[in-house]
Amino acid sequence: MEPGKKLTIGLFGFGVVGKGLYDVLHNTATLQSTIKKICIKNTDKKRSIGQEHFTSEASELLNDEDINVIVELIDDAAAAFEIVKTALQKGKAVVSANKKMIAEHFEELLALQKKYQTPFLYEASCCASMPLIRNLEEYYDNDLLQSFRGIINGSTNFILTKIFQEQLEFNAALLMAQQMGFAESNPKLDIGGFDAANKLSILLAHSFGVIAGIEKFIFNGIENISLQDAEVAKEKKFSIKLVANAQKLKNGKLAAFVLPQFVTTNDDLYHVQNEFNAITTESSFADKHFFKGKGAGAFPTASAVLSDISALRYNYKYEYKKIYDQTETALTNNFYLKVFISVDDLAKIKKEDFEWIEEWHNGLQYSWMIAIIHAEKLVTGNWWKEKGVSLIVYPDGIEEGIDYKKISKRSLELAGVV
Amino acid sequence: MEPGKKLTIGLFGFGVVGKGLYDVLHNTATLQSTIKKICIKNTDKKRSIGQEHFTSEASELLNDEDINVIVELIDDAAAAFEIVKTALQKGKAVVSANKKMIAEHFEELLALQKKYQTPFLYEASCCASMPLIRNLEEYYDNDLLQSFRGIINGSTNFILTKIFQEQLEFNAALLMAQQMGFAESNPKLDIGGFDAANKLSILLAHSFGVIAGIEKFIFNGIENISLQDAEVAKEKKFSIKLVANAQKLKNGKLAAFVLPQFVTTNDDLYHVQNEFNAITTESSFADKHFFKGKGAGAFPTASAVLSDISALRYNYKYEYKKIYDQTETALTNNFYLKVFISVDDLAKIKKEDFEWIEEWHNGLQYSWMIAIIHAEKLVTGNWWKEKGVSLIVYPDGIEEGIDYKKISKRSLELAGVV
Repeated sequence: MEPGKKLTIGLFGFGVVGKGLYDVLHNTATLQSTIKKICIKNTDKKRSIGQEHFTSEASELLNDEDINVIVELIDDAAAAFEIVKTALQKGKAVVSANKKMIAEHFEELLALQKKYQTPFLYEASCCASMPLIRNLEEYYDNDLLQSFRGIINGSTNFILTKIFQEQLEFNAALLMAQQMGFAESNPKLDIGGFDAANKLSILLAHSFGVIAGIEKFIFNGIENISLQDAEVAKEKKFSIKLVANAQKLKNGKLAAFVLPQFVTTNDDLYHVQNEFNAITTESSFADKHFFKGKGAGAFPTASAVLSDISALRYNYKYEYKKIYDQTETALTNNFYLKVFISVDDLAKIKKEDFEWIEEWHNGLQYSWMIAIIHAEKLVTGNWWKEKGVSLIVYPDGIEEGIDYKKISKRSLELAGVV
Repeated sequence: MEPGKKLTIGLFGFGVVGKGLYDVLHNTATLQSTIKKICIKNTDKKRSIGQEHFTSEASELLNDEDINVIVELIDDAAAAFEIVKTALQKGKAVVSANKKMIAEHFEELLALQKKYQTPFLYEASCCASMPLIRNLEEYYDNDLLQSFRGIINGSTNFILTKIFQEQLEFNAALLMAQQMGFAESNPKLDIGGFDAANKLSILLAHSFGVIAGIEKFIFNGIENISLQDAEVAKEKKFSIKLVANAQKLKNGKLAAFVLPQFVTTNDDLYHVQNEFNAITTESSFADKHFFKGKGAGAFPTASAVLSDISALRYNYKYEYKKIYDQTETALTNNFYLKVFISVDDLAKIKKEDFEWIEEWHNGLQYSWMIAIIHAEKLVTGNWWKEKGVSLIVYPDGIEEGIDYKKISKRSLELAGVV
């Protein structure tokens, strides 16, 4: 119960998050932390604080023995990794918000932490202000976690909300998200699902001890979600959300993916609007938890960085208990998904990929079906990601109970698709 | 990153929570923890496990040097305190779920932890399965927390849900809560607001560093909430919830109370039904967070106890940062509340206590008004807790902006009440 230690920080990047962080740290005496030097690309740019705070030389921060914490808030994932790596090697604690860098280098970063015994915290990398990693790491740590589902990208949720509430077309909604500062500098990262996939990759490690890059699971974004899809969803009293899923199957293996999903009004995720993020967890004893917060924006991101800095004062580090202590959980694509699929041209559907068709609606420019597909088919084929095709998971879309392989393809014949 | 240490547990109490805990601990090898002995009142009672596990002698557990963790799950707060005190003195870590005991002895327990440097964890004491204390303690620890509001008693929320959804009278709903196992053994603790007040007392310490027993703030339960109150609420598109509030006022002081409150449909708390609990926090950078989970029941409570046991394996203890490190926040009753008040008899209202009356409806057996009252008036008077009187805080009921003292009592005259 001693007061926390004093931190001397070297900061990389001085965008909106970095600036906000600077202000708060220097206006909150109890945090006992100061930013000694800030490394930026362009030292000529006019800044809100004196020139003497800045340098363009990374080594000036990394070699400064006074500096015991590096806070990395730059955009470039490759450069960020080099900074983090060097800092950890030099025994400096590191705080980062760079999900892409962390997801891509998870194993190396784990090895570095183990070797140099230096803390590396990155709460801001997943859903900004919400303490997700910390809770998954510390609280749901007893083999009892069954699943989590969540809206973990603020920008796409903002866009989907606008499509739904204001009947905006996709591109108009995207522009609005960019103007509000909710989108990554490269919007493809958000709308293509890459950002959510990077976060899922990180969350899988802290929730189930699974180390898996984004190439290891199915993911997609929301680029092909149309106003017509939203209309169908509304008729069925659903909303459409981009949902990250991780669910333990009955065989103990883990199904994980990021896909657009229909959510019902009694699903907590239904009420999560605009840039808000949310996650539901289900565990054997604790039952369902639901957690909602701001998942994008400069201030919410800075708040998570701040919280990591504060935790370092008390020598907190991730124990990675589930990776080191618990029995390994394996990812699998051996499960079925119930999906809604819409197309502008019937020829785009690879009919032979389906196990079962429940509903089928033909239109001149817009046709849709509700059907069962094996997840492996989504891995091997890419037709469902093409322009003009929407694939949206149905509520409770993971199907384990029925072995559709054993059912004849009679339903497909009846529907006239094979 | 070493595997957690092995724990040998002495358990006090073997009710539903204790039994569930026993099963999980002995079926989850990775937890590395065993219950060595269980202390119960009545050793003659038939149990689901062998007689050799039990004793009625507390000292048999407390003097056993093998036992390094005491888990206290008994009902009697006074006896529980003696057990916890002795265990901490003997250097044993303690896990407890006893909110009454903790709220009543907070300062002594703090001193014991400081003196003997032994961890004392009690996540299960506030909202069962939800990691509230841990999050308030670890995450919102940077002077930036503005407020929290929450439904922190599952039993009363269950009762209110039944009154609302099934038009049950209060007593029928209470009986149902008892049958479902959601009520404390003494229902007065729940419905009189004592349980929620004990939890608020604990949460105030971990959120704002305020040590305050329940006699230090205003609280009430839901005993007087009638079907007619529910009807008025429905007409106004409100629901009624028993809400614990803690809000920093503009002068830096803290307003805290537990009272029934009208909540609007766009309030996250509106959608919290049955035995679920939920809390919203608001902080300067992170903005609004909302967290919902099961706040009552044997399994959700056992899950929190389990999580504390798991945390002890990694030597976790509360740092009480806000008590020791941060500037003190003082409680105040110097604020106004906008309230709905209903009575079966107009004579029960102490009219001169009000500053302002906005609405007034007279009926033969049921009258109600919406009015402004200074919080201090609720401390000094008790008329508003009497049978036949409901006092329900209005949405956004804390009024800081207007100094009603300076406004003439003209409004009261107009309403014909003074």
